[in-house]
Amino acid sequence: MADLVRIREVGLRDGLQLVKDVLPTELKLEWIEAAAGAGLPEIEVTSYVPPHVIPQFADADAVTAAALEVPGTLASALAVNLKGAERAYDLGIGKINYVISASEMHSRANVRRTRQEAVEAFRAVAAERRSRGLEGKVALSCGIATAFGCTLQGEVAEADVLRLVAEAVEAGADEIMIADTVGYADPLRVRRLFAAVLAETGSTPVAAHFHDTRGLGLANVMAAVETGIRRFDASLGGLGGCPFAPGATGNIDTEDTVYLLETQGLSTGIDMRALLDLRSRLSAWLPNETLGGAVQKAGIPGLAESYPSLATAMA
Amino acid sequence: MADLVRIREVGLRDGLQLVKDVLPTELKLEWIEAAAGAGLPEIEVTSYVPPHVIPQFADADAVTAAALEVPGTLASALAVNLKGAERAYDLGIGKINYVISASEMHSRANVRRTRQEAVEAFRAVAAERRSRGLEGKVALSCGIATAFGCTLQGEVAEADVLRLVAEAVEAGADEIMIADTVGYADPLRVRRLFAAVLAETGSTPVAAHFHDTRGLGLANVMAAVETGIRRFDASLGGLGGCPFAPGATGNIDTEDTVYLLETQGLSTGIDMRALLDLRSRLSAWLPNETLGGAVQKAGIPGLAESYPSLATAMA
Repeated sequence: MADLVRIREVGLRDGLQLVKDVLPTELKLEWIEAAAGAGLPEIEVTSYVPPHVIPQFADADAVTAAALEVPGTLASALAVNLKGAERAYDLGIGKINYVISASEMHSRANVRRTRQEAVEAFRAVAAERRSRGLEGKVALSCGIATAFGCTLQGEVAEADVLRLVAEAVEAGADEIMIADTVGYADPLRVRRLFAAVLAETGSTPVAAHFHDTRGLGLANVMAAVETGIRRFDASLGGLGGCPFAPGATGNIDTEDTVYLLETQGLSTGIDMRALLDLRSRLSAWLPNETLGGAVQKAGIPGLAESYPSLATAMA
Repeated sequence: MADLVRIREVGLRDGLQLVKDVLPTELKLEWIEAAAGAGLPEIEVTSYVPPHVIPQFADADAVTAAALEVPGTLASALAVNLKGAERAYDLGIGKINYVISASEMHSRANVRRTRQEAVEAFRAVAAERRSRGLEGKVALSCGIATAFGCTLQGEVAEADVLRLVAEAVEAGADEIMIADTVGYADPLRVRRLFAAVLAETGSTPVAAHFHDTRGLGLANVMAAVETGIRRFDASLGGLGGCPFAPGATGNIDTEDTVYLLETQGLSTGIDMRALLDLRSRLSAWLPNETLGGAVQKAGIPGLAESYPSLATAMA
């Protein structure tokens, strides 16, 4: 298993999305710079939505422009429709994260459209990329949300997920991201669904997005790793949640996820000391948020000798 | 994997051990009765130590006597020396949990004796059982503490763990319990150590005791399950810690562990609704303790249809 795992920090987008206190733009940039400095290969820096919908992302253009100047990391951002994608293309971003809900009810509640309309909008986003001559320059990631079930609809059929994956790949997705938006995944279902998705995607890489809603987040990461997944979304301090998942604990913690993966002989390329330093600053920036993260709390004393990769990071 | 997993509730012992507020005896009994009612097959009800060492266990005799009257569960208790075991035999308990530290430094700091002295004391406990004619009537479990490393000593050699396991089995242990006392385990090391221990123990069952110190508790449970382990210690709300593991988060949560195992098609025989009801009462009984447990926080709405075993429990 000694290979590379790519972690995308989504705290600035999925994490901040439900945070009432608007984080000042300069702190967002400090976060991006520190995350890049800690070795995070990709950072989802913002979301292109109208400011009245989510005031937290009113500075999306400024954040994007500044993030694109930060060396050593790939800045990506969320666009859930053609309008958002056009803004992203105009800004010169290198990767757009798009999302389709596998749950029809979640799709209608979250973005007021059917799943099929979401697929068609993704095709329009890809067509726009083509017409701008940006193929090979801007990557398109297509996430499948509520892939393990939905608080509104209940069960989500695996066949629905696989059909959407196939349509996204066919439309031009450079990456498929499978999201357990409300925390219904468990190791057994993770293995089953990701194996089926991998059989569908061929050479298109597949990422996993887990929430730790019911405590199974890192057990799910292990199951996905064992199934061959090497790309994971995570947010510092587990910041995040979902408006349709009441009480949800948020995303899996970046720092605990890195710790888990490194102990398994996988390399994240992330400097744990720098990451924990950033994590401490985050607590100060968001005093009204309850942040998680067991490694932050317990530290990793005495572990350096057991894990050469962490020892290097801590040296 | 559709088989039985046996969970031992250790909140009343490992959980309460560091809790400053002494829980009244009647609430301990309410806890034991409710846990038994929820289907927990074994409850570690107390520890036989002098009251001045741990005032929380000053009522050990009364708790034991009352617990032995509770139907439907096996009451066990911790005894770390012959004196404690003699008290246990006198009280008529059906199972004694003994413990040996695999870390020489932890052994000296925790119970002021060498590992070899701990092995000899276990032999004396077994000899006493023989001389009282209690073989086949009182079970002896022998735990190996700090089996994955120690905050005081650092590394603990696998060979040391295996030697202690062999000595405990040879001395008459009916169960071996491998404990990650300070939260140094990870899935890779869990698989490696438990496979080696299982090769050593033959027909003697092996239990696992994990702390969630660095967030890997349930990932470690999965790894142990995959290695063939079917006995786990857990405490309600993750209550617990270790005086030599500063900042430690405590044991893995009983409720999250049950949820994980049931989603994997394993049967714990535990009624989740009754368990969560008890968990709510625990928060009220211990207002000064920060209890964990993601399932308690998020609930399991909409999941009944996905997991027939949980549906039955919730019915």
